[in-house]
Amino acid sequence: MLVKEIGEQGLLKILQRFCPSDIIGDDGAVLPIAAKKSLVVTTDVLVDNIHFSENTTSASDVGWRSAAANLSDLAAMGASPLGITVGLALPGDTTVDWVENLYQGMTQCLRKYNTPIVGGDIVRSPIINVAITAFGEVSPERTIRRNQARVGDAIVVTGCHGASRGGLELLLNPNLKTNLSTYEKVALIKTHQRPKPRLDVLPVLWEIVDSHSILDICGMDTSDGLADAILQICHSSQVGAAIEATKIPLHKAFQSWLTPEQALNYALYGGEDFELMLCLPKEASTELVSKLGNSAAIIGTIIDSDKVLLQDQYKKNPDQVLNLNRGFQHFSN
Amino acid sequence: MLVKEIGEQGLLKILQRFCPSDIIGDDGAVLPIAAKKSLVVTTDVLVDNIHFSENTTSASDVGWRSAAANLSDLAAMGASPLGITVGLALPGDTTVDWVENLYQGMTQCLRKYNTPIVGGDIVRSPIINVAITAFGEVSPERTIRRNQARVGDAIVVTGCHGASRGGLELLLNPNLKTNLSTYEKVALIKTHQRPKPRLDVLPVLWEIVDSHSILDICGMDTSDGLADAILQICHSSQVGAAIEATKIPLHKAFQSWLTPEQALNYALYGGEDFELMLCLPKEASTELVSKLGNSAAIIGTIIDSDKVLLQDQYKKNPDQVLNLNRGFQHFSN
Repeated sequence: MLVKEIGEQGLLKILQRFCPSDIIGDDGAVLPIAAKKSLVVTTDVLVDNIHFSENTTSASDVGWRSAAANLSDLAAMGASPLGITVGLALPGDTTVDWVENLYQGMTQCLRKYNTPIVGGDIVRSPIINVAITAFGEVSPERTIRRNQARVGDAIVVTGCHGASRGGLELLLNPNLKTNLSTYEKVALIKTHQRPKPRLDVLPVLWEIVDSHSILDICGMDTSDGLADAILQICHSSQVGAAIEATKIPLHKAFQSWLTPEQALNYALYGGEDFELMLCLPKEASTELVSKLGNSAAIIGTIIDSDKVLLQDQYKKNPDQVLNLNRGFQHFSN
Repeated sequence: MLVKEIGEQGLLKILQRFCPSDIIGDDGAVLPIAAKKSLVVTTDVLVDNIHFSENTTSASDVGWRSAAANLSDLAAMGASPLGITVGLALPGDTTVDWVENLYQGMTQCLRKYNTPIVGGDIVRSPIINVAITAFGEVSPERTIRRNQARVGDAIVVTGCHGASRGGLELLLNPNLKTNLSTYEKVALIKTHQRPKPRLDVLPVLWEIVDSHSILDICGMDTSDGLADAILQICHSSQVGAAIEATKIPLHKAFQSWLTPEQALNYALYGGEDFELMLCLPKEASTELVSKLGNSAAIIGTIIDSDKVLLQDQYKKNPDQVLNLNRGFQHFSN
C-alpha cells in the first residue's frame, strides 16, 4: 500500500496510533511544564540518501536514530524530555509500511524515556526528509553549557567512541575481511543502528554536582565526533585542552580489527556515538567516572591555551593539534 | 556565492545574525517559560515546488509565510509565541543570498510579534525543505480548542476569506484579464505573500471571554480554508453547523472580478488566509465582531446535526452539504 493511495488523512489516522490520544487534533500540542523550569528546544533534520540509506538503515532504525539524536541533544543540555514533533516530507509512492516502521522505531526509542510524539506535519516531497524537534525542561541552575569549561577541569567522556563508525563500516562493506567474531560485528552494528541517548547520566551527574557544589556545568554530546566536541567546548569557553590519546575509551573489538591509528581516527572523527563530554573539577570527574562505569573515562585536561593537543602518553608520537577539517563537512560534496 | 562554497560553518555564521546572540551555540536553546503556563508546540513543513515556487514566491516571502503560518497556529491555540526553530535542508548550489533572504523574511514577520529564531539545523539535500517548529505559552484556562463548540454558538471569522487564493491566481497568471485596478491587484497579491497571523485577536478575545465568564473557548485557524476549519471543528466537537453563504466576508475586489460562485469557492476552499474561526455564545460573538471590526463577521451557527450546511439567505440556491473532498489533498497528485 502506498501513501498516495490512502492520502494525508489516511496516513494521519495510522500515525496517530503512535501519539497520546489526548494531544491530537488541534493546531498545536499543549504540554504542561513544571514551575521554575526552563524550556529546552533542539532540532535535527535527516535526508534520505544523505543521513541514512536503505543499505545500512531500515525505516525503524532511521526512526530510532532520529529520536535518539534529539534526546541526546536534550541530555547534553541537562534537560528531561517532554516530547518531540515530527515534520515528515515524503513521496506519494513511499509505502505506508515504511512510514509506520519509521514511527515504530521512533516510539521504541522514545518509550524508554517516557517521551511522546506530540505532533507534526506530513507533506508531499520528491525526497524523504525527517525534521524532528525535541523539547525538554531543565532547572536553570542545572543547564549544561558548552562555554563553562575552566582551566584545570578534567574532561570526561561517558563511554566508548568510534563504535558507531565501526558499525557503519561493517554495514557498508558486508564482505569486509576482519578477525571479528559474529558477536562483535553485531554489537558494533547495533551501536550504529540503535544508539542510546545518555539521559541516564543526568541523575548521577546531579548527585555529584550537588555534593561538590558545582555552579556551572560544562558539556555537550559527541554526536559529531569526539574531536568536534572538545573543539566546540574549547572554542565556546575560550580555553584549550590536552587530550591523552591512550585514555580515549575504544570498543574492545577494535583491537582485533583496526590499527591503533585507525581506531583513534574512528573515535575522534567517526561521530554518532551520542555519548556526553563533560568538563568538571578533577575530584568530581573521578567520582562521576567511577559511578558511571561502563567505559566512562577522564581523557584529558582543560588548559590555558588556544589549541587542543592530542598527546601520546608514552611519547612515541609527537603532540598533534586537533582541528575540525578532518571532521564531517556537510556541504563539501 | 553558493552555499557549498562557504560550507555549513560559513552559512551558520551568516544565519546567526538573525538569532539572539545569547541563545546560540549549544545543543539546544534554553527559554524561560512563565509560571502556570502550558507549552504549545506546532510544526509546519514547506517543500520547494510544492508549497512555494520561484514564480510566485521570493525567498523572503517564503520566509515570511512560513513564520506566519506557524504563528497563526499558535494564535489558533490562544498562545503567545516564545520562539521558532528552523530545520533547513537545501542543495549545495543554493545561493547564499537565497538563504539570507529566507531568514530575512522570517525575521521581518517574527519581529512584529517579538518572536526570536532560537535554533535549528542546516543539512544538505537535493531539494529545499523548510521545517519550522513554533512554541508558545498559554494559560491552561485560555487554551483554544477545536472540540469545544456547542449547539447554539455563533461562528465568528476574524476577517476576509479567499483573498490569498485570489492573489495566488494573479501571480500564476500575470496576463489574466480582469477589471481589477493595480491597487486591488497589489492588495490581493500582498495578502498571499505576506499574510498576518491574527495574534492581535487574542487580547480582544480574552477581554470578552473574561467579561462573559466563558470557560471553554472553541476555535482554530483557517489556514486550510474556511470549509476545512468549520468541518474540523464540527468533527472534533461532534456537532453540525449552518453557514450563511452571504455572510462570509469576501475581499471587495472580488465584486469586479469573480462571479459570486467563484468568490465563494475561493473563500471556502482557497486556504492560507490565516484568519481565526471562533465558536462562542451569541452575545460574546457579537461583541467580539464589533470590537475587531475589519471584516470580522458571524457567518453561522453551531447546530445539533452531523452535517455542515451552506445556506443561501435568499433561498436562491438549495442548501449545500460541505465536505472536504473539494479541499486540498496533499498526496493526491
